[in-house]
Amino acid sequence: MQIIVQKYGGSSIAEPELIKNIARRVVETKQKGNRVVVVVSAMGDTTDELLKMAHQITASPCDRELDMLLSTGEQISIALLVMAINNLGCSAVSLTGSQAGIVTDDVHSKARIMKIDPDRVNQELEQDKVIVVAGYQGITEKGDIATLGRGGSDTTAVALAASLKANICEIYTDVDGVYTADPRIIPQAFKHNFISYDEMLELASLGALVLQPRAVEFAKNYAVPLLIRSSFNDCAGTLVGEVATVENCRPVSGVTHDLNVAKIGIFDVPDCPGIAKDIFQCLADEQINVDMIIQGWVRDDRNDIVFTVTRADLETALPVVEKIVREIGASGFVYNDRVAKVSIVGAGMITNSGVAADMFKALAEEGINIEMISTSEVKVSCVIDEGQAIKAVQALHAEFFE
Amino acid sequence: MQIIVQKYGGSSIAEPELIKNIARRVVETKQKGNRVVVVVSAMGDTTDELLKMAHQITASPCDRELDMLLSTGEQISIALLVMAINNLGCSAVSLTGSQAGIVTDDVHSKARIMKIDPDRVNQELEQDKVIVVAGYQGITEKGDIATLGRGGSDTTAVALAASLKANICEIYTDVDGVYTADPRIIPQAFKHNFISYDEMLELASLGALVLQPRAVEFAKNYAVPLLIRSSFNDCAGTLVGEVATVENCRPVSGVTHDLNVAKIGIFDVPDCPGIAKDIFQCLADEQINVDMIIQGWVRDDRNDIVFTVTRADLETALPVVEKIVREIGASGFVYNDRVAKVSIVGAGMITNSGVAADMFKALAEEGINIEMISTSEVKVSCVIDEGQAIKAVQALHAEFFE
Repeated sequence: MQIIVQKYGGSSIAEPELIKNIARRVVETKQKGNRVVVVVSAMGDTTDELLKMAHQITASPCDRELDMLLSTGEQISIALLVMAINNLGCSAVSLTGSQAGIVTDDVHSKARIMKIDPDRVNQELEQDKVIVVAGYQGITEKGDIATLGRGGSDTTAVALAASLKANICEIYTDVDGVYTADPRIIPQAFKHNFISYDEMLELASLGALVLQPRAVEFAKNYAVPLLIRSSFNDCAGTLVGEVATVENCRPVSGVTHDLNVAKIGIFDVPDCPGIAKDIFQCLADEQINVDMIIQGWVRDDRNDIVFTVTRADLETALPVVEKIVREIGASGFVYNDRVAKVSIVGAGMITNSGVAADMFKALAEEGINIEMISTSEVKVSCVIDEGQAIKAVQALHAEFFE
Repeated sequence: MQIIVQKYGGSSIAEPELIKNIARRVVETKQKGNRVVVVVSAMGDTTDELLKMAHQITASPCDRELDMLLSTGEQISIALLVMAINNLGCSAVSLTGSQAGIVTDDVHSKARIMKIDPDRVNQELEQDKVIVVAGYQGITEKGDIATLGRGGSDTTAVALAASLKANICEIYTDVDGVYTADPRIIPQAFKHNFISYDEMLELASLGALVLQPRAVEFAKNYAVPLLIRSSFNDCAGTLVGEVATVENCRPVSGVTHDLNVAKIGIFDVPDCPGIAKDIFQCLADEQINVDMIIQGWVRDDRNDIVFTVTRADLETALPVVEKIVREIGASGFVYNDRVAKVSIVGAGMITNSGVAADMFKALAEEGINIEMISTSEVKVSCVIDEGQAIKAVQALHAEFFE
C-alpha cells in the first residue's frame, strides 16, 4: 500500500466550495487504495487578518504570542477539511502540529523542525483513516506552539513524507508546475515535466514562489520525490527528484527574478582573519538571512563587503550593521532597497562553459547594468536596478529558451 | 501574596479596545502585588462565526472536529490579550487548555474536567508572569482537544482557582452582579451583595445567565469564593460563598425565568421497578440533560411520566422517546416546546413555610395556569405557557420583593 502525502496551500482552500473540492481529491486518492496524509495551510488571507488583529493591539507583538495566534489559522483549516472528507463518507481525523508529533526548536516565527514523532499519525493510519495535519506549526520541547515561518506548510509536508517513508509528496498550488520563467511575465515560458532537487532549490530560493526552499532541501536530503501540481485542474505537474543527466540537454532550466532584495555595503573593512565571521555572526544572531556576499580585492589592507538581505529584514539589519561598523573600525556603510535579483538556474550549467558569459551579454545588449554577481554550481545571479527586472527576465528567457 | 483568578466573557473582549481595557484591569490587579491568572472566552461572536463555517461544509459536523475548530476562538483571545498586557510593560504568557494542564474526559463538545496538572502554570507564576489561559477547553488523555460546552470558561476559571488554591475567582461579565430578577424585565430588581453557592446554583441553572451552573457546583465543592462583577464599570459586584444564615432575612433571593424549555409526556407507563431507569438512562446515553421529572399517581398499574429538556435537545430526544415508548409498552407520547419555567430561589426557603403557597397564589391572581411543579430545598419551579412568562416574573417579584 502506497503512502501519499498531499499539501494544499492557502489559495486552494480559501472558501468552503474549494475545501469540498479538495476533499473530493483526497477521497479519490484514498479510494485508489492509498494511505493518505494531507497537510493544509490557513484559508486564503486568514493569516493576514490575524496579523491585522495583532497590530490593532500593539505595534510589536512578541513572536511567541504571534505563533499562538497565527497557528489557529491552520487549525481551522484542518477541522473544516476533515468535516468535508467525513461528509463524503470517508473516515478522517485532524491533527495539530503538536498532535502530529512535529517537534521544533524554540525560535518562534522561524522555527525549524527538530524531529517528528509519528506514533499518533501511524496509529490513525493503521485505523485506515485519512490524516489531516496543520501545516506551518509544531511544538517546542517546552510545550509551546511555534510556527515555521511563511510557507512552512511545504516543510511540514516534506518532513512528514520523509518520516513516514511516503512514496510521494504532492504539493498542490495554484500553478500547473515549474516553468522556465514566470508565465505571467513571459508568455513563451514552458513547463518542466521533471527537474532536479538542486535546480528546484535554486528556483525556489530565487523567487519562483512555487515551493519553500527549506522544503526542497529536506526533500533532497531524505530523497522524497515531490510532485508540484495545480489543485484547480488535472495537469500532470512537475516531478522533482534526483538529477538524471541524460535528460539535461539544456544547460539552463529556468530564469527567475526576486524583488524582495536589499543590498548593504560596508566600506573599508580591515583585512584581518575573523572579520567576516564577526559581521555575519552578528546578523545571524538576529535571525537575519544573508543571501549574496561579495568581497572585493584587498587594497591598503582594507576592502569593501557587500551583501543582500530581504527587504523585510533590512530594518532589523541596519542598526546591527551600524554597530558592526563602529566595532570593526570600517569607514561607513550604505544600503539600497530598490534592487532586484535575476538568475539563471540549471543543473547542466556545470558541464557547459560560457553560460554565464551568455547571460552577461544578454543583459548588456538591453543596457542593463550589473551591480553584483554571484555564482554556484547550478545558478548565476545578478543584482540589478529593480526597474529593469522584467526586461532582464525577458531578455534572458529569449537568450536561453527561444 | 494573593492568587487571583479573573475570567472575562466574550462580550468583555469583543473588540481590540475592550481587550486593551481588560489588559489595564489585569495589570492593575498585578501591580497591587497579586499573582494573577486570567481565563478568557472567544471574542464576541467568534464561536458563532466558526459554527457557521462548519455548517457551510456539512450539516452534521462531528463533535471531535467541532472542538478542534471552536477551540481556536479562545486561542485567538489569549494571544491578543497577552500582547495587550505586554504592551503595558507587564510580563505575561498565554496557555491553551492543554498547556495549562486541563485534562478532560472524551465527551467532545460537553467534556468534563477530570484533573488539572498545574505544573506549567505554577512555573510561569514563579517567574512573576501574568498567566492567560484559554477557557472552555482541555485535552483528553488521548491528546485530543475537547471543549466543555457553552459557558465552559466559567468552569475553567473556577477549576483553575481550586487547583491553585486561589484567594478569589472573579467572574467579569456584562452585568453588575446577581439581581433579584432580570433588571431588563423588572426595573425594581435590586442587586445582592452576597448570596450562597446553593442559591447561585439554582439561579444559574434557572436562566439567570450570569454564571455556568457547573462552575458554581465546582466552586461550592472546593470552597472557591466567587465575585461576579462587570468589566465595564467598578461596581462592587456580588460575592458568592458559603451560606451565612444571619444574612438571610428574606426567604426568597431571586425570581428567574427560562424560555429554553420543552416538555415531553409519556402516557401509561407500566408501573414496574427499573422503568424510570430505562427511560432516563437512554436519554443520558445521548447526552440529553433532563431537568424536571414528574411522575403521577399510579392507577391500574400504569402512570404518566412528564419531563423537561432544553429546546436544543428536543430534536435528539424525540426519536429516543419514540423507541422507549415502543420498548416499554407505553401508550404514546406528546411534547410541547412553547413552555417556560419560572422559579423562586432562596436559601431561607427551607425555614420559611408557606413560600410555595405564596408563589402559587401570585400566579393564580394573574390567571396563569401551572402545568408542572418541582421543588428543592432552595427553589420552587413552575412550568407555564411561554406567553405568560414575563407577566409571571413581574407578579412573583412584586409578591416577594416589593
